[in-house]
Amino acid sequence: MPHIELPEGVPGIGSGFMFRPETAKPMRELAEVLLRGDNTLGRGERELIAAYVSNLNDCMFCQASHSSFAALQLDGGMAVVEQVKCDPASAPISDKLRALLAIAARVQQNGKLVTTEDVEAARAEGATDVEIHDTVLIAAAFSMFNRYVDGLATVTPVGDELYDPMGRRMASEGYVRK
Amino acid sequence: MPHIELPEGVPGIGSGFMFRPETAKPMRELAEVLLRGDNTLGRGERELIAAYVSNLNDCMFCQASHSSFAALQLDGGMAVVEQVKCDPASAPISDKLRALLAIAARVQQNGKLVTTEDVEAARAEGATDVEIHDTVLIAAAFSMFNRYVDGLATVTPVGDELYDPMGRRMASEGYVRK
Repeated sequence: MPHIELPEGVPGIGSGFMFRPETAKPMRELAEVLLRGDNTLGRGERELIAAYVSNLNDCMFCQASHSSFAALQLDGGMAVVEQVKCDPASAPISDKLRALLAIAARVQQNGKLVTTEDVEAARAEGATDVEIHDTVLIAAAFSMFNRYVDGLATVTPVGDELYDPMGRRMASEGYVRK
Repeated sequence: MPHIELPEGVPGIGSGFMFRPETAKPMRELAEVLLRGDNTLGRGERELIAAYVSNLNDCMFCQASHSSFAALQLDGGMAVVEQVKCDPASAPISDKLRALLAIAARVQQNGKLVTTEDVEAARAEGATDVEIHDTVLIAAAFSMFNRYVDGLATVTPVGDELYDPMGRRMASEGYVRK
């Protein structure tokens, strides 16, 4: 049961967003720019970073929803997403994305843990400054979204199939409500 | 030295904001609504929660700047801010704020750690649902801002006196750039 009186029948972060539209607006906009804005990183790659960090933070709602969004947009679908969450080192993804996920995992713990070597490794695989910046910020932003969802004890639906329609809606409509 | 080529001579989060104005906009707006928007929690109280969480995350730039902003707006000034960072249990603050800080400390670790008892304790001291929501979100948002600042290895000026002008400018101009 949520810790405060959130709108009923709305799962996860949406209930916090409905409760407080003033803070929802910039949070939705940040997700939109980071995950769906123009970028040399694909949408599936960015959703994968979000799902990976959410899984490290053990946030069921965010990891299930963003895994579903990533799977819809990545070659290899959910099998690749699950492999990345279990062991990014052996997952069939590009070495650039693997190096960016390593940076994201550091940020998930604490930003200070990112080393010059981590960043050089990503750069050696072709990562640009904007890609490194956005990886750090996606990991940081999901450290917020995850804490928000779980800190309010929002409702987490159980069952992967429930997240597929959410993923399809996000893919077509985006994170910002018109 | 920052991990990517950030604008020189700009300390802390401002350099990340200048590097990527697209993501800066919603991040600034979120800070503005959360820390300076209409609220039954005072601005000094909200800045104190931000400083407290930033200190737990060991983010020097954020903890120094938001400590300075809090001190400018709280009765008791920096002495109270320092006491809160050392030991909120004995600091001369309201019992409501003390209970909200306890929630913020849980969220800083992981949102799942917030218990029904934590929330009931805050409510018993008069905290409203919006105040509890905003406390969770301030703690969550600073878990993002702190990781962003440190994950990019932005420049952290040393010396408390450097943060006072920043605090005064924030107090008068706010977090959103016109």
